[in-house]
Amino acid sequence: MTGWVAVAGLGPGAEALVTPEVTATLAEATDVVGYIPYVARVTPRPGLTLLPSDNRVEVDRATHALTMAAEGKRVVVVSSGDPGVFAMASALFEALEAGPRDWRSIDIRVLPGITAMLAASARAGAPLGHDFCAINLSDNLKPWDVIEKRLRLAAEADFAMAFYNPRSASRPMGFERTLEVLREACGDARPVIFARNVSLPDETIRVVPLTETTPEMADMRTLVIVGSSRTRIIERPDLAPIVYTPRFAE
Amino acid sequence: MTGWVAVAGLGPGAEALVTPEVTATLAEATDVVGYIPYVARVTPRPGLTLLPSDNRVEVDRATHALTMAAEGKRVVVVSSGDPGVFAMASALFEALEAGPRDWRSIDIRVLPGITAMLAASARAGAPLGHDFCAINLSDNLKPWDVIEKRLRLAAEADFAMAFYNPRSASRPMGFERTLEVLREACGDARPVIFARNVSLPDETIRVVPLTETTPEMADMRTLVIVGSSRTRIIERPDLAPIVYTPRFAE
Repeated sequence: MTGWVAVAGLGPGAEALVTPEVTATLAEATDVVGYIPYVARVTPRPGLTLLPSDNRVEVDRATHALTMAAEGKRVVVVSSGDPGVFAMASALFEALEAGPRDWRSIDIRVLPGITAMLAASARAGAPLGHDFCAINLSDNLKPWDVIEKRLRLAAEADFAMAFYNPRSASRPMGFERTLEVLREACGDARPVIFARNVSLPDETIRVVPLTETTPEMADMRTLVIVGSSRTRIIERPDLAPIVYTPRFAE
Repeated sequence: MTGWVAVAGLGPGAEALVTPEVTATLAEATDVVGYIPYVARVTPRPGLTLLPSDNRVEVDRATHALTMAAEGKRVVVVSSGDPGVFAMASALFEALEAGPRDWRSIDIRVLPGITAMLAASARAGAPLGHDFCAINLSDNLKPWDVIEKRLRLAAEADFAMAFYNPRSASRPMGFERTLEVLREACGDARPVIFARNVSLPDETIRVVPLTETTPEMADMRTLVIVGSSRTRIIERPDLAPIVYTPRFAE
């Protein structure tokens, strides 16, 4: 039996957003590893071992997956969203590069998924319909001055911006400073979208002018999208407004 | 009967990357509109009218879809990839905003899909595993100086970059100038990924150092990803190299 590792994106939460490729790959697996709430989304069956682990042990989990695959197991590493966007794929390759040379013969596949910003954008309209950037606001992974520099340059480039991991209890100040920097750098009341638990039954989508945003509008289950200078709102009677960025730039 | 419009992303090409949400919505539709090759991906059935149209008539197509929905039809506008990323969703909202007020009561949904950069990233490894931007290089939609400014700012921000619509026969110079600007702004041999026809049987993935890139490596069926300064290559015996960007920044 030849082992393999597939790093699979489960999408933002709804089963209807899981690709058939991911479903078919899970059906062939012997082992599933991942953060507890993502492994909980996999249907148990005989012959499939579920190995949930805690957050912030991404490289340990990746090392475990590669070790099992080298032993002949068929391992799926589950991620939410897309595994290549601020998720498990980079952690797996960090572990691969640091591990024994013979791991480099392991069959490794990355299976794309619907990342949170695409699901959030779809619910709000099309705020990412023109050039945009995606920034992980977790300063566990990089110093604040790198984040602030990127925010200022992204505003100058007039990108729409999608923010992952905007705010946690352990570092509440980062998002407050993000909003301060953006208000100064953008200088307008462009729409900001706070999309929480997108695609799940308790989904909320809130659209707030940048000038009226406050840090507590986001938590770690929120994806934040800040429009560009050209992002527009279409108001609708008895329906949520649509936020979109036109395809054209002047 | 109440009409609606769903703008649906068919993903990059493989059927295994079409979400169940999109498949279920197509099963309820009366009419499908879209660019000829995307409508060709929809399985015909009795009761479903397929209305393919040519490229560059996005707003006409969107107006047609909204007109039919206002008449009670259930219309799916098909896009490749994700409809919110350089695709039909913004065109639909442009038509909605320009159209009659009563269109604003129409039930409109955007159904996300696997956009080309996620599929290309997955095939190459995880080049978008840290902060990144997405830029449409088509200068049908914006002046070249806007594109060049964004390229320089994105390089200064040290974003990985995904380029859509890099090159067409009608404007071959734009991508050549893009590569010149990037070589100057980045000043290194970071990996560039040319991903053509991703997820299709004739897919090709080519990894080239920025210093050795040439314009003809891309066409309109190519998604180009340029790494950040920290993007790495893992060489493997008898297997394609893996290109990934670590999660951490200094």
